[in-house]
Amino acid sequence: MAQFAVNPSFISFAGGYPAADAFDFDGIRRASEKAWSQGAKDCLQYGATEGVAPLRAALKALGLARGIHAEDDQLMVTTGSQQALDFLLRATVAPGDTVLVERPTYPGALQAFRLAGARVVGIDGDAEGIDPQAVARAIEAAPSKPKMIYVVPTFANPTGATMSESRRRDLLALAAKHDILLVEDDPYGLLRFSGDAVAPIAAHAAKDAELRKVSVYLSTLSKVAVPALRIGWMVASSEVTRRCVMAKQVSDLCTSPWMQHIGAAYLDSPEFAAHVPRIIATYKERADAMVTALHQAFDKEWVFLVPDGGMFLWVKLPRGVDAGELLKAALAQKVVFVPGAACYASEPDAACLRMSYSTASPEVIREGVARLAHAYRSYCVG
Amino acid sequence: MAQFAVNPSFISFAGGYPAADAFDFDGIRRASEKAWSQGAKDCLQYGATEGVAPLRAALKALGLARGIHAEDDQLMVTTGSQQALDFLLRATVAPGDTVLVERPTYPGALQAFRLAGARVVGIDGDAEGIDPQAVARAIEAAPSKPKMIYVVPTFANPTGATMSESRRRDLLALAAKHDILLVEDDPYGLLRFSGDAVAPIAAHAAKDAELRKVSVYLSTLSKVAVPALRIGWMVASSEVTRRCVMAKQVSDLCTSPWMQHIGAAYLDSPEFAAHVPRIIATYKERADAMVTALHQAFDKEWVFLVPDGGMFLWVKLPRGVDAGELLKAALAQKVVFVPGAACYASEPDAACLRMSYSTASPEVIREGVARLAHAYRSYCVG
Repeated sequence: MAQFAVNPSFISFAGGYPAADAFDFDGIRRASEKAWSQGAKDCLQYGATEGVAPLRAALKALGLARGIHAEDDQLMVTTGSQQALDFLLRATVAPGDTVLVERPTYPGALQAFRLAGARVVGIDGDAEGIDPQAVARAIEAAPSKPKMIYVVPTFANPTGATMSESRRRDLLALAAKHDILLVEDDPYGLLRFSGDAVAPIAAHAAKDAELRKVSVYLSTLSKVAVPALRIGWMVASSEVTRRCVMAKQVSDLCTSPWMQHIGAAYLDSPEFAAHVPRIIATYKERADAMVTALHQAFDKEWVFLVPDGGMFLWVKLPRGVDAGELLKAALAQKVVFVPGAACYASEPDAACLRMSYSTASPEVIREGVARLAHAYRSYCVG
Repeated sequence: MAQFAVNPSFISFAGGYPAADAFDFDGIRRASEKAWSQGAKDCLQYGATEGVAPLRAALKALGLARGIHAEDDQLMVTTGSQQALDFLLRATVAPGDTVLVERPTYPGALQAFRLAGARVVGIDGDAEGIDPQAVARAIEAAPSKPKMIYVVPTFANPTGATMSESRRRDLLALAAKHDILLVEDDPYGLLRFSGDAVAPIAAHAAKDAELRKVSVYLSTLSKVAVPALRIGWMVASSEVTRRCVMAKQVSDLCTSPWMQHIGAAYLDSPEFAAHVPRIIATYKERADAMVTALHQAFDKEWVFLVPDGGMFLWVKLPRGVDAGELLKAALAQKVVFVPGAACYASEPDAACLRMSYSTASPEVIREGVARLAHAYRSYCVG
C-alpha cells in the first residue's frame, strides 16, 4: 500500500480541483450542525435570490478585510463564481460584442464567452499579468467598444502570474475612462504562500464612484472552503447587480439556503480562520515540490514562473514542442496535464502546458514529474 | 399566542412555497448524516455536471415507478427544475422563436421565455388542461414552426387542472408529428389527494423512439422533499440532454454534490416513502379547508376548479372584477393572493386570481378567506 501511495496507477496534474485531502471535514461538519441548530426551517425553505442575510454579512466582512466595500444592492450570492460570470454575460454582453481577455486565460471563462457568442480578443500577458497599454491599444483597434475586460489578476489560472499594483490601477482607470466593465475573477486571492499581498482591483475601486461603476469582483468559497457548498458571489454596481439578480431569478431561483447557512457559519468560525493558513501551507509544500522536481528534471529547458500562490504552474516548452503530442507520450506514462491550447481564444501557443499541484502529495508530484521527464524524452526522440 | 396562531398579522395565499411546517426535518437530517458517513469527500468535492451516480440512480427509480425510462445519456441533474428549463431554452430556443404555452401558465416559465427573447403564444386551457386541437391550429398559424410546447399537465400552476390521458397522448403525437419539443413540467405530480392517477406524458413517450425524441420531462425534489436541496432533473433525448449539460458546464459546473448525496440518501430512505403521503394528507386538509371556506364566503360568485392535488386553486371572478384592484382591498385586510394577470404572456384576464393553500393551516385559511370576503365586499361597494 505504501508503494501504491507514491506510485498511483495514474497521476493527474490536469484538474483544477482543490485538495480534497486538505478539506476541513471537522470544521465543515461543525458549521453544518450549527446552521441546522440555528434554524433548520430557514436552511430547508427557498431563500432570497440575492442570498441569505447571514452569508451576505459574512461575505461583506470577508471583502472588507481586503478593502472591498459592498452596499446591500451591490452584492449577490451565486451558485459558484462561474455562475456569476454566466449571469454577467447574459446581463451585459450580446452576441458579437467584444470581450478582452489575457492570453492565456481560464478555459471555463472562454467557454462561457463562446456560448454567449462574444468576440474574444486575447492580449498577451507576462509575469505581471496583462499590460494596460496593450489593452488600451486593443480598445482602440476594436470595431466597436468592448463590453468587458476579463482578468484573473491574482495567481492566475493558468499562468500563476499576479498583476502588479500599478497595472491594477492603470487597468481600472482605463476601464473607467472607456466605461467598460472590468471583471476581476478572484478564486485564489486568499491563497498566497510567498511574496507581498496585492490589493484586489475592487479595493482600488472602493474609493471612487466612477471606478466602482465599472468594477466587478467575483469570488468563491470553492478553493478556501469546499466546492460542494457551490457558493460564489459578485460585487458590482447596483445596476449590474440588479440585472444579474433577474437572470438568477429565472435560472435557479436561489442558491441552496442550506449551503448558504453552512457557508455563513463556517466563515464566522475559528475553524475557517485556522484552515486557510493550513491550505496555504499545503499548497506551498506542493508547489515547492513541483518547482524543485521540474528544475531537476528539465533544468532550463522548461521555462516557468515560480508561483506565489494559487494552484497552477504554467510551462513554456522549447519552441516547436507540441504539448498536445507530448500529452500522448505522457498518457503512455500514466501522467496528465492540460495542453496550453485550451487556454487561448484563438491562435493558441502549442508549446505551453498547465500543471496543477493542488491535489497530489509531494511524493506523488515527484513521481509524476519523473514520468513526465520520461515522456518528454520519448517525445523528443520519437 | 393561540389568538396569534389563528389571526396572524398577515396571511399570504400568494407564495408558491411548500409547507415548511410539514418538512420532514428528522428524515432529512438522517439522510444528511448518512450521506456524510458514506463519503464526506464525495460530498464536498466538485462532481460530474450530469449529477452524482447515487442520485441519478434514485431519480431513475423514481421515474420508473411512474413509467418514465431514462438511459444514462438522457438524464441530467439540475439546480432545481427552473434551471432545467433555463438550459433547455438556451440549448433550443433562439430570440424570435415561438413557444406555445397554456393560458394561463406558470409565471416563472413566462419570465424565462421572455428573457430568452421567445415569442410566446398562449392557448386557452380548460379543466382538462390544454386542448391539442387548439395547439394544432396554433402550430399551423405560427409564422415559423414553434420550437417548444410547454405544459404543466398535472395539478397545473396556476389552475390546478390535470390534463386527461387522451389529451396527453394526442398532444405528444402532435408534437412528434411536427418535431416540436413537448416540455412537461411536473413539480407536483406525486401530490395527488383525490381522483385517479394519470401517467406522465413522458411515460407515454417511453415506448416509441419518435415520441421520445420530442418528450422532455422536468421535475424537482422541492415539493416532495425540500426546496433547499435545489435538486431538479430532466429526462430528454440524448441530443437535447448533451446540449443542456454543456450549458450547465459553463453556468454552474455542477449542482452541489453534498445536496445530491443527501437527496439520494433521502429518496432511498423509508422516511421519504412515509413522508409523501403525509404531505398529501396535509395539502388535502388545506385544500378542503380553502374550498369549503370559499364556497361559504362566495357561494357561486367565485368560480374555481376543486383541485385533485398540488398546491393551487384558480379563481374566476365575476366579469368586470379587476383582481389587481381587489388585491389593494385585500392588502388593507392583511391578506394576499396572486392576481391572475401574471400568469398570461399577453392579453391577461384581469378577473382571475391564484390562491395557494400549501403553507397555511386550515384555521389560518378560514381566517384569510374571511378577510378576503371582507375585502371583496369593500371592493364591490367601492
